[in-house]
Amino acid sequence: MKPYREMSKEELSSLKEQLEQIYKEYQGKNLKLNMARGKPSPEQLDLSLPMMDVLNSKSDYMSVDGDVRNYGVLTGIQEAKELMGQMMDSPAENIVMYGTSSLTLMYDTVSRSYTRGVMGSTPWCKLDKVKFLCPVPGYDRHFAITESFGIELINIPLHDDGPDMDMVEEYVNNDETVKGIWCVPLYSNPSGQSYSDEVVKRFANLKPAAKDFRIYWDNAYCVHHLDPDHPDHVLDILSECEKAGNPDMVYKFGSTAKVTFPGAGISAIATSKNNIEDMKKQMNVQMISHDKINQLRHVRYFKNLDGIKEHMRKQAAILRPRFEAVDEILTRELGGLEIGTWTKPHGGYFVSFDSLDGCAKAIVQKCKDAGVVMTGAGATYPYGKDPHDSNIRIAPSFPALDELKMAAEIFCVCVKLVSIDKLLAE
Amino acid sequence: MKPYREMSKEELSSLKEQLEQIYKEYQGKNLKLNMARGKPSPEQLDLSLPMMDVLNSKSDYMSVDGDVRNYGVLTGIQEAKELMGQMMDSPAENIVMYGTSSLTLMYDTVSRSYTRGVMGSTPWCKLDKVKFLCPVPGYDRHFAITESFGIELINIPLHDDGPDMDMVEEYVNNDETVKGIWCVPLYSNPSGQSYSDEVVKRFANLKPAAKDFRIYWDNAYCVHHLDPDHPDHVLDILSECEKAGNPDMVYKFGSTAKVTFPGAGISAIATSKNNIEDMKKQMNVQMISHDKINQLRHVRYFKNLDGIKEHMRKQAAILRPRFEAVDEILTRELGGLEIGTWTKPHGGYFVSFDSLDGCAKAIVQKCKDAGVVMTGAGATYPYGKDPHDSNIRIAPSFPALDELKMAAEIFCVCVKLVSIDKLLAE
Repeated sequence: MKPYREMSKEELSSLKEQLEQIYKEYQGKNLKLNMARGKPSPEQLDLSLPMMDVLNSKSDYMSVDGDVRNYGVLTGIQEAKELMGQMMDSPAENIVMYGTSSLTLMYDTVSRSYTRGVMGSTPWCKLDKVKFLCPVPGYDRHFAITESFGIELINIPLHDDGPDMDMVEEYVNNDETVKGIWCVPLYSNPSGQSYSDEVVKRFANLKPAAKDFRIYWDNAYCVHHLDPDHPDHVLDILSECEKAGNPDMVYKFGSTAKVTFPGAGISAIATSKNNIEDMKKQMNVQMISHDKINQLRHVRYFKNLDGIKEHMRKQAAILRPRFEAVDEILTRELGGLEIGTWTKPHGGYFVSFDSLDGCAKAIVQKCKDAGVVMTGAGATYPYGKDPHDSNIRIAPSFPALDELKMAAEIFCVCVKLVSIDKLLAE
Repeated sequence: MKPYREMSKEELSSLKEQLEQIYKEYQGKNLKLNMARGKPSPEQLDLSLPMMDVLNSKSDYMSVDGDVRNYGVLTGIQEAKELMGQMMDSPAENIVMYGTSSLTLMYDTVSRSYTRGVMGSTPWCKLDKVKFLCPVPGYDRHFAITESFGIELINIPLHDDGPDMDMVEEYVNNDETVKGIWCVPLYSNPSGQSYSDEVVKRFANLKPAAKDFRIYWDNAYCVHHLDPDHPDHVLDILSECEKAGNPDMVYKFGSTAKVTFPGAGISAIATSKNNIEDMKKQMNVQMISHDKINQLRHVRYFKNLDGIKEHMRKQAAILRPRFEAVDEILTRELGGLEIGTWTKPHGGYFVSFDSLDGCAKAIVQKCKDAGVVMTGAGATYPYGKDPHDSNIRIAPSFPALDELKMAAEIFCVCVKLVSIDKLLAE
C-alpha cells in the first residue's frame, strides 16, 4: 500500500473516481447502520434474562436488611454493597448503592456539590468560577454534565499511560477553582488506555489547592475485558488515596449497565466514610431508597464476583469478534495509507480513530449520507470542539456482525474520500 | 363520657393513678410497635407479586419503543405513558415517566428550578429569596425538599375543602418570590381532605406575580380509596389550568409506590408540553432513560386503569379494617372526653389526630417510652414546628391488625395521661 501523501494528484483523482462509484453503490442500498453509541447487542442482553427468574416466592424478597419490597434502607442492602464492592475493588462499608444508572449518580454528585457544597465547603453555585479537568478524548456525557452547570472544562491530553500528570498537578495543586477531573481509568472511553500504576499514585498524591477537589473515577469497564485471561489492571485509587493521606479525594463510580441491562442495572459509588456521610444528608431528602428488588435480583443471580466474571466471559465471546472485524477491515482497507490511526483496546466499548487533521466532521457526515450513523465528530471533546477535527469514536458492540462489517467498509471508503479531498486541496 | 375539663382535680388525679398503672403494664411488655410511616403491609405487597412473572421470553421485552432492555427512550415507553396517564387523569402526551419514586421526581424538579430556572427564568440559586407555600398539616418530605434548598416555607391553613385560598391568592398574586405550593389534593397527607371543585378552579385561575410559579400537585393517593364504591373525586388541575389560560402553571406527580412496591414502582409527571420540553433539556444530561423493564412490567400486569382499580380494591379490603380499628378504639377510649379530635378519611394512608394544645410532643414521647413509635410530633409542619404542638399523624397501614389495635390502645392511654397533666397544671 502506498501512502496517499506519496501519490500524485492524478493518481488521487483517479482513485477518487473509483471510490465515488463504490460510495454511490452503498448509498443506493438505503442502509440504516449505526456505530454511534456503546450499546450492548441483543445477544449480550439475552445472557442476563435468567436473572429475571431468581426471585419467586415471597421469602425470596428478604434481604439481611429486611423485605426489599418495602420502603427504607437509604444506601442499599448489605448484600448488594458486598457484590458491588467486590466488583469495584472496595470494602462494602465504602459503598453506597444508587439507582439504575451511574450517569445519574455522577450527575447527582456534581449537582449536590453545586447546590450544597462538599463537606461544608461553599456550594459551587455561589462561586464565580468552577473548573473541571477533562482528559481528551473522553466521554461526551461526562463533559455534558459539568458543562450544563456552567463549569469551565479544560482539556488534558491523554497519553498511553493516562492523563498528562504534569499538567494535572500544575492545575490541581495551584488553582483552587479546579474542583474535579473526569477519569475512565480502565479501557478509557473512547481511546482504550488503562492508567499506569505511576499515574494512579500521582493522582493519589495530589495536593489540591481546593479542599473540595474530587477525582471523578468512572470505572465503567472494570469487568469488561475483551480477553478475560489477560485483563488490564489498574491500581485501586481509593486505597492509594488513603495511603497518601488524601482519603476523601476520590469518588469511584460503577454500574452493571453493561453487565446486565443498560438503564435497568444497579449502580454504586465507592468512597470514604466522610464523603458517604456528606452525601447521605442530601440523599435522605431526595429519596427513601433506590430499587432494592433489583439490587437483590442482581445479588441472587451473580452471588459474587466469580459469578460476574463468568458472565462477562460470555459477553467477551460475543464482543471480541466484533472488535476483531473492525480492526481487520480497517487494517485491510487503510493499512499503509497513512490517512488514519486507530486503537486496539483490550476492553471497554470503543475503538478510537484519528483521521488526518480537519477530516473527522466530513467523514462522519459522509457516513451519515450513506446511512451509517457514527458518534458526532467532536463529541469526544468538551464543548464538542476537537481542536484537530480528527477523532472519531467507533462503537462496534451493537450491530450484528454482517452489518458491522458493512458499516466498517463504508466508513473506510468515507475516510479515503475525505482524505483525498484534503490532499487534493493542499 | 364526661369531658376531662369538667372533672375536678381530685377526679383527674385518681384517674391518672389508674392510667399510670395500665401504662406501666404496657411498658413491661417490651413492645416494639410502629405507627410512624405510611408503609404498605406485607399482605398488600403480596398482591403485586404476580407482576414479577409477566415478562418471560425475549419477545416479552419489546415495547412500541423497542427493546426495553437497552439504552434509550428518555421520557419512557409509550405504553407506560398511557397507563400512568389514565391513572393520573391526563393524556399520554402530557406524561414523562420517571424513576422508582415520585419523591425523587419532586426533588429533581425543585433542584432543576434551583440550578437552571424554569423555562428561561433566573435559576433560584441566583435569587436572594425564594418562598414556597405549605398547606398545613402536610407531608414532611415535601417540606424537607424545599427547606434543604434554603427556600422559605410559609404555613397555609388547610380547611375541609382545601387550602385557605384567600391566603394563597394573596401570596401568589402579589409576591414574586413565591415560586411554588405543595399540594396533596386527594386524601391529603395527613388530614385526609379532598379539594373542592371551587378550590381547584381558584388554583387554576391564580395570577402569579412570578412567571416561574408552579403548583406542585402531588396526587399520591389518586387510586387509593378506602371505599372504592364511593371515592372522593378532585377536578383535574392540568385541564383546569389550560382552560384558565395558565397551561404551564402545574406539575402533577404520581407513582405506583403504594400500588405495587414502594421504592420499586414507577413514577410520572403530567404537565404541559412547554414544561416537558424544559425538563427534557436537563433530563437528557442526567440520564439516558429510567428503568423501562419495570415500566413494561407494570403495563403488562395492569393492562389499563381497570386493572389498577381492581388491584386497589384488594388493597382497600386489607387497609379498611385497619382504619376502622383505629377509629373504633379512638372512639371507644377518647369519645366525649374532649381531649382530642381525629379524621375519618375516605382514602390515603393516614389518620390525623389533634390533641389539646401543647400535648403532641409529650404524647409521642410517652408512646415511644412504651415501645410505640409514632411520626415525630411537629413533622407535619414546616421546620418541624407545629405552632399548637397538637397534630399527630397516625399511620395504620403497616402493623398487623392485632398489633395495630394494641398500639392504638397505648396511644389512647398516652393521650389521656398527657392531657390530665396539662389540665392539672392549669
